[in-house]
Amino acid sequence: MSTDAAALSFDPCDPVAVAQALIRCPSVTPEDGGALGVLEAALAPLGFVCHRLRFEEEGTAPVDNLYARLGTEGPNFCFAGHTDVVPPGELKGWSIDPFAAEIHNGRLYGRGAVDMKGAVAAFVAAAARHVKAAKETGGAPKGSISLLITGDEEGVAINGTRKVLDWMRANGETLDACVVGEPTNPKALGDMIKIGRRGSMTAFLTVYGAQGHVAYPHLADNPLPRLARMLAAITAEPLDAGTPHFQPSNLELTTIDVGNPAHNVIPALGRATLNIRFNDLHTADTLVAWLRERFDRVGGTYELDHFVSGDSFLTPPGPLTELVAEAAERVTGRRPDYSTTGGTSDARFIKNFCPVVEFGLVGQTMHKVDEHTTLDDLTRLTDIYGEVLRTVFDRIG
Amino acid sequence: MSTDAAALSFDPCDPVAVAQALIRCPSVTPEDGGALGVLEAALAPLGFVCHRLRFEEEGTAPVDNLYARLGTEGPNFCFAGHTDVVPPGELKGWSIDPFAAEIHNGRLYGRGAVDMKGAVAAFVAAAARHVKAAKETGGAPKGSISLLITGDEEGVAINGTRKVLDWMRANGETLDACVVGEPTNPKALGDMIKIGRRGSMTAFLTVYGAQGHVAYPHLADNPLPRLARMLAAITAEPLDAGTPHFQPSNLELTTIDVGNPAHNVIPALGRATLNIRFNDLHTADTLVAWLRERFDRVGGTYELDHFVSGDSFLTPPGPLTELVAEAAERVTGRRPDYSTTGGTSDARFIKNFCPVVEFGLVGQTMHKVDEHTTLDDLTRLTDIYGEVLRTVFDRIG
Repeated sequence: MSTDAAALSFDPCDPVAVAQALIRCPSVTPEDGGALGVLEAALAPLGFVCHRLRFEEEGTAPVDNLYARLGTEGPNFCFAGHTDVVPPGELKGWSIDPFAAEIHNGRLYGRGAVDMKGAVAAFVAAAARHVKAAKETGGAPKGSISLLITGDEEGVAINGTRKVLDWMRANGETLDACVVGEPTNPKALGDMIKIGRRGSMTAFLTVYGAQGHVAYPHLADNPLPRLARMLAAITAEPLDAGTPHFQPSNLELTTIDVGNPAHNVIPALGRATLNIRFNDLHTADTLVAWLRERFDRVGGTYELDHFVSGDSFLTPPGPLTELVAEAAERVTGRRPDYSTTGGTSDARFIKNFCPVVEFGLVGQTMHKVDEHTTLDDLTRLTDIYGEVLRTVFDRIG
Repeated sequence: MSTDAAALSFDPCDPVAVAQALIRCPSVTPEDGGALGVLEAALAPLGFVCHRLRFEEEGTAPVDNLYARLGTEGPNFCFAGHTDVVPPGELKGWSIDPFAAEIHNGRLYGRGAVDMKGAVAAFVAAAARHVKAAKETGGAPKGSISLLITGDEEGVAINGTRKVLDWMRANGETLDACVVGEPTNPKALGDMIKIGRRGSMTAFLTVYGAQGHVAYPHLADNPLPRLARMLAAITAEPLDAGTPHFQPSNLELTTIDVGNPAHNVIPALGRATLNIRFNDLHTADTLVAWLRERFDRVGGTYELDHFVSGDSFLTPPGPLTELVAEAAERVTGRRPDYSTTGGTSDARFIKNFCPVVEFGLVGQTMHKVDEHTTLDDLTRLTDIYGEVLRTVFDRIG
């Protein structure tokens, strides 16, 4: 699909048409499938300056990203999201073609409909309407609106938002506030705004002993009783009781492996892996110290490695969260809860640049067969994003 | 090698010559390699009635065994052992050919020299001398001497001693006492008689939960904390403090396996294997109850399977142990300790038929490269077995 052809095929003020154009691009991560071309075709005529950013790194697939900005003044309000989608899985599980973007009974079906091509389409439509409204009153929009769209959110997230932000920093681009369009609502539009996320750390424990024969244990040193005691110790008590905006931190053992097939042999070592989803009471360093304190109490020789997929973060209730909550309430009649539950999102990178909250469609069918959004939700989400833009720029009027 | 050729090549009264003939048969378990033919060739001329017993079972290799009996009257005194050997391993580790039976500096080298072709040769030589001595006094040996020799001791032990004993029971053969020729002496001939063995039980624990995502633990049930607590519980305290003739029972965890490669997934189950070497305070049933009591205290759903390689057994100090100890002391000047340490042996099967003790060569090089015995030990062991025969049959005189 050429960009021009895309430009002609839909009205950028119509979120359903934009969403259909996006869903029809088979952008299974890390493929772009033409999706960013659809956005450029919609945004460029509105006056957005589009920066197509292709990043790659050894051992990863190259990924296309888009940073599009309308205006040069501050404040720079950003809509962030992704056009890549998870694979459709077994096609025979789907009632319809996951890339056909068909509408049935008031619902738009397709992979990415809620996670999150629908929300990206709502970004575009809200921005297009905002520009149109400004023109109708004879002026230009105040401040700047930008879209930060990656093709590497569902994948390894190495060549995506993180590198776009690096590029922005290097090019003097700043953001003042951001809404990420992840599907945050559990059941109905207006349920929930995510104002932060727990952090995630994975740790690898290896406990060492000395191999030997089970009949002669005095000549060996079995590491497994120590491993069992260490794992029992770190799962005996919760890490904390939660904080005002966060659930209690949670530790899960994900695997224990020794791989000794001989019933008469004491193994030389045992390994375990654990994952901690942690709130704002912890950092990776404090968690490692917490683990080591318990492991040291058991004693013996062990190694502890770890990696952090994301630190916990929070945009405390304040101007941005209120603004989005009020916009959602005006459109839906529901006052969204502030939440920090669930997995990670690219907001974990953006929070280092500006206040960021997440609000999008209803997540129930995300990553599932027959993923779909109602047309009504898509229209109302566009209205909510439009309210957000209006309020943001009214305030600086 | 034909039996006749073997018969002509050595003097059955010479344990070194018999041992050399046996070592030169490459009887790596379960192969016979001509070893039992050597024994038949030596024993038949002495008047032994030889029963060559070949057993097989689906999934195992057929194995040759020998039950040879001299005499028809009671008591029937048995020497038991095996002619199969463990593989020599890397040949380049050996200074000499493991099947050449070379003598250097007063030592006989070869796979099986101590475990236990040397002792089997000493059985033969002691019996041959006993017969010769009886003939020289113009009589026949009193009672019966029998040899129970298997080719399946170092292997799975399914088609060996166990089945020979079944055959004996079916054929009305009874035993009154038995000496097994395993290498029981840690450092010097006369150190140690084994009067029993610990039992061995292997148990398999599977702990069940419900799979899920680490970010949504309330929708899952992680089995691994329970597994860790169960394993910590059964390794927290010893099973017992030992008994007059046994070491404390000992439990070793041999493996823990989950095999979950996904750091964000809570696994559905975890497995562990453990081995218990247990003394005469326990049986498999009491051990399973001991384990279940501790697992039940942790709770949750689990499965526990087990198999018993051998129950613990003891031939309490008495006539047989004293007789062997006195014979060893007369020849070596050392009073052997009574012990129940170490691994299992075919004595675990024979103990159901008659009192049984184990006494053989010095075990230091068993299963190792350059396995060897001194010629002096071989000669003195033959003397000890001869003393045993003399004493046994003197007593019924």
